[in-house]
Amino acid sequence: METQIKQGFFAERAALNMTDYLVFDYLFETVDDPEAAAAHLCQEQSTAQWKRVGVDEDLREQFGAKVIDLRVEGTAERASYPLPGAEDSPVSRCRVKIAHPHGNFGPKLPNMMTAALGEGAFYSPGIATIKLMDIEFPDDYLHTFEGPKFGVQGFRDLLAVYDRPLFFGVVKPNIGLAPDDFAALAYEAYLGGLDIAKDDEMQLDTPWSPTPERAAKTGQARAEAERITGEKKLYLANITDEVDRLLELHDVAVDNGAGAVMINALTTGLSAIRMLRRRNRVPLVSHFDFIAPFTHISYFGVHSALVTKLQRLVGFDVIIFPGFGSRMKTPDDEVIASVTACLEPWGNIKPALPVPAGSQWAGSTGELYRRLGTVDFGIVPGRAVFEHPLGPRGGAASLRQGWEAVVAGQSLEAYAENHEALRAALASR
Amino acid sequence: METQIKQGFFAERAALNMTDYLVFDYLFETVDDPEAAAAHLCQEQSTAQWKRVGVDEDLREQFGAKVIDLRVEGTAERASYPLPGAEDSPVSRCRVKIAHPHGNFGPKLPNMMTAALGEGAFYSPGIATIKLMDIEFPDDYLHTFEGPKFGVQGFRDLLAVYDRPLFFGVVKPNIGLAPDDFAALAYEAYLGGLDIAKDDEMQLDTPWSPTPERAAKTGQARAEAERITGEKKLYLANITDEVDRLLELHDVAVDNGAGAVMINALTTGLSAIRMLRRRNRVPLVSHFDFIAPFTHISYFGVHSALVTKLQRLVGFDVIIFPGFGSRMKTPDDEVIASVTACLEPWGNIKPALPVPAGSQWAGSTGELYRRLGTVDFGIVPGRAVFEHPLGPRGGAASLRQGWEAVVAGQSLEAYAENHEALRAALASR
Repeated sequence: METQIKQGFFAERAALNMTDYLVFDYLFETVDDPEAAAAHLCQEQSTAQWKRVGVDEDLREQFGAKVIDLRVEGTAERASYPLPGAEDSPVSRCRVKIAHPHGNFGPKLPNMMTAALGEGAFYSPGIATIKLMDIEFPDDYLHTFEGPKFGVQGFRDLLAVYDRPLFFGVVKPNIGLAPDDFAALAYEAYLGGLDIAKDDEMQLDTPWSPTPERAAKTGQARAEAERITGEKKLYLANITDEVDRLLELHDVAVDNGAGAVMINALTTGLSAIRMLRRRNRVPLVSHFDFIAPFTHISYFGVHSALVTKLQRLVGFDVIIFPGFGSRMKTPDDEVIASVTACLEPWGNIKPALPVPAGSQWAGSTGELYRRLGTVDFGIVPGRAVFEHPLGPRGGAASLRQGWEAVVAGQSLEAYAENHEALRAALASR
Repeated sequence: METQIKQGFFAERAALNMTDYLVFDYLFETVDDPEAAAAHLCQEQSTAQWKRVGVDEDLREQFGAKVIDLRVEGTAERASYPLPGAEDSPVSRCRVKIAHPHGNFGPKLPNMMTAALGEGAFYSPGIATIKLMDIEFPDDYLHTFEGPKFGVQGFRDLLAVYDRPLFFGVVKPNIGLAPDDFAALAYEAYLGGLDIAKDDEMQLDTPWSPTPERAAKTGQARAEAERITGEKKLYLANITDEVDRLLELHDVAVDNGAGAVMINALTTGLSAIRMLRRRNRVPLVSHFDFIAPFTHISYFGVHSALVTKLQRLVGFDVIIFPGFGSRMKTPDDEVIASVTACLEPWGNIKPALPVPAGSQWAGSTGELYRRLGTVDFGIVPGRAVFEHPLGPRGGAASLRQGWEAVVAGQSLEAYAENHEALRAALASR
């Protein structure tokens, strides 16, 4: 039986025309023979039954997924998460690369997810735990996706800022403010030096803050702040809603004054973003709600950096994701991998601006700059701006001063001696 | 600090107008004081910063989520899954009910998911593991959702079958068959007694099997089989694709001969189904691809029965989900909970037909009937029909004979003595 299942589901990479394949890269733990488990994984995710009864045919060659690399990385007395019925069985820990013919589903994200993350992958016999770590895409397949319309460069062009990280600020209180109050807070923060005032991920089109009115008032505040500061500014409106309202809300927000739109894309589904991407007039920004349930467990689900990669693929210009620090409960190497997934050269797909988020303040920009070695990122504090002791203007100023300290080669403390907003930020920590 | 965080985020259920609240029911493990952790969970998922600097206001009363029930169910030396930085800290295992004012997001699924499963819920301080177990919906809120258009009764009406479980069959081989071959297999299975021939979840609109042609050929096979057998039949087309093609594919499939359509709804997003539900002319059937990554871990993510409930809420008439048996790696009580989520009375929302799936055959119907105590369910074998030694006609006949044995009060073995298809099914196991 094991020999039988292995037939037809193994190949050498060099023997395949890799233009025709995506490569699904999985980590898995199995109670079975690793080769048999890997073959099952291919069979279940592609040609589960590969011939008709009584017909001499074999659909595996064209349609079968194939193991092109399998490494047993170790063994353990039991799985990280038990396989029902085999709780105390020893397991092999494996890493496998599976070449899956993309002709099986075409350039369609839900169907690709069905193959990579569906019944076949997660209910394959003998496999206790499994995590999809990455997907390799051939250039021809990438060309069927639009990717970011603006990218890092286009987003920077809107702000005419090229030499430093970008300062997003989440207007707070995040729920319950009328548009006038919301715009007044954004205005103060713009004057203090904020680049982008944004809606919280919980802010949406509501009776107490209709999107057209919020966008109009905040757009006016933005224009006035631009006139005073001589700097370009953006208002980022969260248009997350049922998918059949996304296009309408994009238009409403933009026509009224939003310079970019945000979508909590894992709650709408990434396919809805492709729909929006065919029509968007301003940059698309993603927020990561609902990412944790399927990325947070180290040996199960999907790697968070792959989710970042897919968000870039469908067209996000800016990607907000869980960043460094204990608050976000995300290993440092995953954060770095997501930054890489945003910025690395990738066929025809433009780079997206990475925004590693979570409990940020004036000191975060320097920390991130030192860790990432680039200015191509954003920070997205909320309370550090809007709960700053000097108010949002002081809060935003503290962000700019935190970066000025980096440029001046000074410690935050030294630079704060002559900069009140930064001093107050330091004192309130 | 702990006293401060607790203020404003606790309430008695009786003191709230519960018509205005959804109740989010979480399991969590915390290294902190349980009350402080629960209050943080409320704060983070609603009014994170609940006043402006220098303004005398408190947005918590109207907009704050509130703990209405908190039970510490036990303690453990460490979390089931570690909290970074507190790997060896003891935890309290808690169950909490949080009343969240639905006015914060309205009857919008992505925004409700943002509140219940977003940054606030999964990155709340001190909480190591968390799982959303259920959501209670007040009737007024339910009324803003359509639910199933047909429901169990409407689906049965299409088949004119009321007194037994329904027999779905996944046409196999699942990938690579031309429409003529596909329809020929479905035809054989219809003649053997299958009610619904369906596309595999990997079957879609492809160059080798365009949906219009597959639907047309299979629709003709269905009509011919109806004429011969005198029974009503359905062809169930998988229309999973990018969300902006769903309406078009629904129309194309139905106009050409499909009597129901399937969507791998967790890969398109549930909000896309609401869009389709405003237009569907035939029953909507869901398949569970991508459910495992966020429901499979017992102390993290989302309970699978809640996902079933949400699928009923958005309008699925038939819900296919991981069923009993080791193959599907799902605890029995979760399967039962999903069946209940489909069938229990629920305000204005019609029941959906539960289809617990996985490695089913002629014996599955009786097993399920005994466990569920109802005939309102479907089974959905693939290979048991299409790899049956006598071919699809025999495979489908074996399903019907398996149920006839139940009705006759005989064992499968006894009934098989005079029924060849069932005998062959038993022999091939």
